[in-house]
Amino acid sequence: MLHFDSDYMEGCHPLILEKLSQINYEKNEGYGSDKYCESAIKKIKEACKKPEAKVQFLVGGTQTNSTVIRALLRPSFGVIAADTGHINTHEAGAVEAGGHKVLTIKGTDGKISASQIENYMTAFYADSNWEHEVRPGMVYISHPTEYGTIYSAKELKEIHEVCKKYKMPLFVDGARLGYGLAAHDTDVTLPVLADSCDVFYIGGTKVGALLGEAVIFTDPCLEQDFFTIKKMAGGLLAKGWLIGVQFDILFTDDNYIKISKNAIDTAMVIRDGLAKKGIKTYLDSPTNQQFFLVSNEEEERIHEFTSCGFMEKPDPDHSVIRFCTSWATSMDDVNELLSHF
Amino acid sequence: MLHFDSDYMEGCHPLILEKLSQINYEKNEGYGSDKYCESAIKKIKEACKKPEAKVQFLVGGTQTNSTVIRALLRPSFGVIAADTGHINTHEAGAVEAGGHKVLTIKGTDGKISASQIENYMTAFYADSNWEHEVRPGMVYISHPTEYGTIYSAKELKEIHEVCKKYKMPLFVDGARLGYGLAAHDTDVTLPVLADSCDVFYIGGTKVGALLGEAVIFTDPCLEQDFFTIKKMAGGLLAKGWLIGVQFDILFTDDNYIKISKNAIDTAMVIRDGLAKKGIKTYLDSPTNQQFFLVSNEEEERIHEFTSCGFMEKPDPDHSVIRFCTSWATSMDDVNELLSHF
Amino acid sequence: MLHFDSDYMEGCHPLILEKLSQINYEKNEGYGSDKYCESAIKKIKEACKKPEAKVQFLVGGTQTNSTVIRALLRPSFGVIAADTGHINTHEAGAVEAGGHKVLTIKGTDGKISASQIENYMTAFYADSNWEHEVRPGMVYISHPTEYGTIYSAKELKEIHEVCKKYKMPLFVDGARLGYGLAAHDTDVTLPVLADSCDVFYIGGTKVGALLGEAVIFTDPCLEQDFFTIKKMAGGLLAKGWLIGVQFDILFTDDNYIKISKNAIDTAMVIRDGLAKKGIKTYLDSPTNQQFFLVSNEEEERIHEFTSCGFMEKPDPDHSVIRFCTSWATSMDDVNELLSHF
Amino acid sequence: MLHFDSDYMEGCHPLILEKLSQINYEKNEGYGSDKYCESAIKKIKEACKKPEAKVQFLVGGTQTNSTVIRALLRPSFGVIAADTGHINTHEAGAVEAGGHKVLTIKGTDGKISASQIENYMTAFYADSNWEHEVRPGMVYISHPTEYGTIYSAKELKEIHEVCKKYKMPLFVDGARLGYGLAAHDTDVTLPVLADSCDVFYIGGTKVGALLGEAVIFTDPCLEQDFFTIKKMAGGLLAKGWLIGVQFDILFTDDNYIKISKNAIDTAMVIRDGLAKKGIKTYLDSPTNQQFFLVSNEEEERIHEFTSCGFMEKPDPDHSVIRFCTSWATSMDDVNELLSHF
Repeated sequence: MLHFDSDYMEGCHPLILEKLSQINYEKNEGYGSDKYCESAIKKIKEACKKPEAKVQFLVGGTQTNSTVIRALLRPSFGVIAADTGHINTHEAGAVEAGGHKVLTIKGTDGKISASQIENYMTAFYADSNWEHEVRPGMVYISHPTEYGTIYSAKELKEIHEVCKKYKMPLFVDGARLGYGLAAHDTDVTLPVLADSCDVFYIGGTKVGALLGEAVIFTDPCLEQDFFTIKKMAGGLLAKGWLIGVQFDILFTDDNYIKISKNAIDTAMVIRDGLAKKGIKTYLDSPTNQQFFLVSNEEEERIHEFTSCGFMEKPDPDHSVIRFCTSWATSMDDVNELLSHF
Repeated sequence: MLHFDSDYMEGCHPLILEKLSQINYEKNEGYGSDKYCESAIKKIKEACKKPEAKVQFLVGGTQTNSTVIRALLRPSFGVIAADTGHINTHEAGAVEAGGHKVLTIKGTDGKISASQIENYMTAFYADSNWEHEVRPGMVYISHPTEYGTIYSAKELKEIHEVCKKYKMPLFVDGARLGYGLAAHDTDVTLPVLADSCDVFYIGGTKVGALLGEAVIFTDPCLEQDFFTIKKMAGGLLAKGWLIGVQFDILFTDDNYIKISKNAIDTAMVIRDGLAKKGIKTYLDSPTNQQFFLVSNEEEERIHEFTSCGFMEKPDPDHSVIRFCTSWATSMDDVNELLSHF
Repeated sequence: MLHFDSDYMEGCHPLILEKLSQINYEKNEGYGSDKYCESAIKKIKEACKKPEAKVQFLVGGTQTNSTVIRALLRPSFGVIAADTGHINTHEAGAVEAGGHKVLTIKGTDGKISASQIENYMTAFYADSNWEHEVRPGMVYISHPTEYGTIYSAKELKEIHEVCKKYKMPLFVDGARLGYGLAAHDTDVTLPVLADSCDVFYIGGTKVGALLGEAVIFTDPCLEQDFFTIKKMAGGLLAKGWLIGVQFDILFTDDNYIKISKNAIDTAMVIRDGLAKKGIKTYLDSPTNQQFFLVSNEEEERIHEFTSCGFMEKPDPDHSVIRFCTSWATSMDDVNELLSHF
Repeated sequence: MLHFDSDYMEGCHPLILEKLSQINYEKNEGYGSDKYCESAIKKIKEACKKPEAKVQFLVGGTQTNSTVIRALLRPSFGVIAADTGHINTHEAGAVEAGGHKVLTIKGTDGKISASQIENYMTAFYADSNWEHEVRPGMVYISHPTEYGTIYSAKELKEIHEVCKKYKMPLFVDGARLGYGLAAHDTDVTLPVLADSCDVFYIGGTKVGALLGEAVIFTDPCLEQDFFTIKKMAGGLLAKGWLIGVQFDILFTDDNYIKISKNAIDTAMVIRDGLAKKGIKTYLDSPTNQQFFLVSNEEEERIHEFTSCGFMEKPDPDHSVIRFCTSWATSMDDVNELLSHF
């Protein structure tokens, strides 16, 4: 049985486990005040070319999204997101549990545009009763999106410009950032991203770490009080060095990008291979999530040899399914998958 | 330089890292639906002799406390705790961030008693305006406490009786539970604890795991909706198997208790050794946290050869300091520590 | 200048001010423990033919909505509402501030249907990941809706059946309830409504009171702890008798319905009068809110002789405007309004 | 039967009811955008000699406290208050429901001092782990306090200085402010108070209004977003003019102070009268709340001719009771009360 369900099925970069074994009896200070965190932060800031940035580590994606949003918004403010955005659909109401409304814009393949945000804001302030309504206080996008799509550098810049116009920080969910950066033909690098938003995170959990997300406040003022808010929100790990070690390794020798490339390479083989075999691509994704439209019978047959993700049923007779690769996916598995079609 | 600051400075039981290396490329389902979690839960329920219990894994202590409390309380209810309780002092307001007040009772060496709770409740309902006030809806204690002390089986039973009388679940914070269970002369075993409360957790982070806490709902009804609430609260790990593997190993061959004993053995040598050398014990702790009252000069001298915890200054000339051992503390370090006195 | 902006522009039923003057120096107990509240509650329960119901008074509509929703939902649950529902659009995020997501269904003229709710629930549980998502825990509708439309008794019953099937309480926002009950040809009476939901409120602020809403828990179990939650939420008035007096008068001699009829009578004259004069009705409302589609030039001209509400711009050249009558609207004003067309 | 339970038993200044009758059919804009609110705000700012201040009206005290605190604090911050402060004891956890911890300082007759706050802050930052704890973000005091005591101008200034030093706004709960301003020998006037804090409120509910509190942001920057937060918190009245009319009258011809004096005059007669008759004063209050220490037998006898407040039982044989006067208390009632002793 093959498994292409998700990108969090395997463990981590083998160097991480090696390092953890080496230092198992080392005594490190708690809560991120250790040398590994210090080194990882230094390397991340260098990779982003943002010496003035502030970096904070958290454990997982939902937690990171809700904690950053809670830290940045005033009580009656809300966060703009695509209707398909992770915070709107798959986080069990974490943002609302923190007191804030998710204000949705209809996404296209998971993305929203600068002009949509501009229109939203224009309409908001055109309503003379806007003071009775939730005020948009920040914008959330994900890169890659939940549909595997990515923004171009130009699109990011344009969104950031609108955000600045309305004094709303732009927050980029990078739970799968490595797979966005490693995509073919993208012009979004870490420094480009860091220049095009106010806060973003580099996902570890889905990209080579056992767990952990690194939040980069490119606007360092936004980081104020964040450590305590993170503690309050349950996102501060006692053994903070555990995340530090992982990001230190991932940001050594370009490991983060290197291992991300494997996910892209394997995904592209799946995409092209299935297309050749006549399986209908649902949308054009350049990253590690590939979506296909299959009939119910085809879906049933697929489940005989592999597990995969289910997205939605556009009609009663068809499903959109997802094949997801990761830094650890083997080309052998991919070839075996293709051999079934 | 020696380190006796805390019990979360080292890594984890070596079998855990070995296992993680073995299964690094295994593909496991996410969010705790894997075979390791299943196996760990089975073993934990057996160790507690509670087949009907429900078990949920979370990442850390503050997160576990606030999530359980949020899940169990009605909106206007509060949680009774010792004034020195961790939720009242060291969690950055996580309980309040979830909407609830911590109602404090003066602790004695970190403990509160059944009669104190009874008195609190009697006074509460004696006030004809009680409906205008925060209603006590559950009781939180820690075992061991923040001062290393432990409850007897009789004390736990008495507290549980009062809680049942007032229909308040009893929640036991076991972030350091192993060190309580392994204490000499305690009559509190896992089954005794499981019979004496409604929900408790077995700490992994401080007792041999890299991270992770196992919450046991001995009253299975209280677990309703908890999975989603945990997700909402940022406590659900994508790679849930990471915690499953660790608890599976810790609850094999009695490992959890075995490694806990090392912390007790080393702590008792420190306690007796320093007492013999005339260092004043601050309070009588049978667990891995040992507290001493030292003069400012003595404290300064101590910091030359070891780091340790600071608790409080009872007067300007003295400090209460803490030496903390763990499952990984070596007797060599302990002997070196004693040699300095 | 005429004013047809809203139904909260005038004071209250004259008998209320008369009574307040009479009893100004009477000393009444605080927080609703007075004889006026007692009498009003008795009359309301009789009018609803629900002797077992529980009644609680609050101050205003947004407050009532958010407090009832907070009291009824478990932490990770959400409330289903029409996308045009007041809680989703005009309450500044009050529901989210209480920790809950508003789950929207596309409304038709402000209404949602039993089959829409059924479909929502079927789709929800069809998703194998539903435990990762906000669970619908109650349904909110308003009667009349924000577009002046009303449900039939059959529609309410059907919605209630679906709610019961999924164990979700049905909550009816009756901020303008009088105007729904007094509508021509409606078959929804107070007892019918009380039989068709689990909790609803009778609006005072917009229907003859200075302020105040009466919440009726037709399922008395749902009222548990509500008094304290109301206090916590800032909805408990120290001079609770102020609301008691008002509802006592409104529920004497059928005053509530009697004064509501005036709003309907005047609204119907506006509706028919403007239709005759060729002004396009935007949707068919049998209550005190009447909506018209006008060109920008017409809108500008209208503002020369009356103020009115603005709803939306369906296209750049037209607006939907609202003429709102109340218990206090005079037929003279209505005739003057019509004379301008 | 006499009634000295509280200061919210009677209605309001008779001019208010007269005015409400006059304007009952006037059509006023909603939500505070009316001429009465405008006029009242102007008069209040003049009375405070603070032209730059911002004024917002809310409905009741608990609501005002929790809304102001929620608006001013960052997520992980808390509010310093006396342990006997209203927000800590009698508000059903409203502050915590908004996500914040109340940090208590032991009060003396309801008051706290600048040096206590200074000591609290010094101790807070002396703890090297302060970033793990709730950070004091504002200070709450009440004037008069829950024990009827008042601050001197010097005490207020000193507290304000400490607050400024630590960049914490000082918030003064003035639910009974009139009775503090009208106290004999006080040097705290409205302008003095306005100069000595960042935000305070003038209580209407307990001082001559049917309902309503006027919040004055003497630091106008703190008012940002408050209107929407107030709406979100259920504190915005649709018929906002109802509060505007009341404060407009109370701040005309010095009515607010004039009617407050009656409460002081009657309270002083009670205080001196009972002292002469040998009833033990519990503490020295110069305002409308007078506290006495009585035996159980005496208490029982008192309840035969008057209702009064109960504060606490210092020992099983005695109670502290409260006689409360108001703007509407008649000297006849006071004399009748005294005649029973």
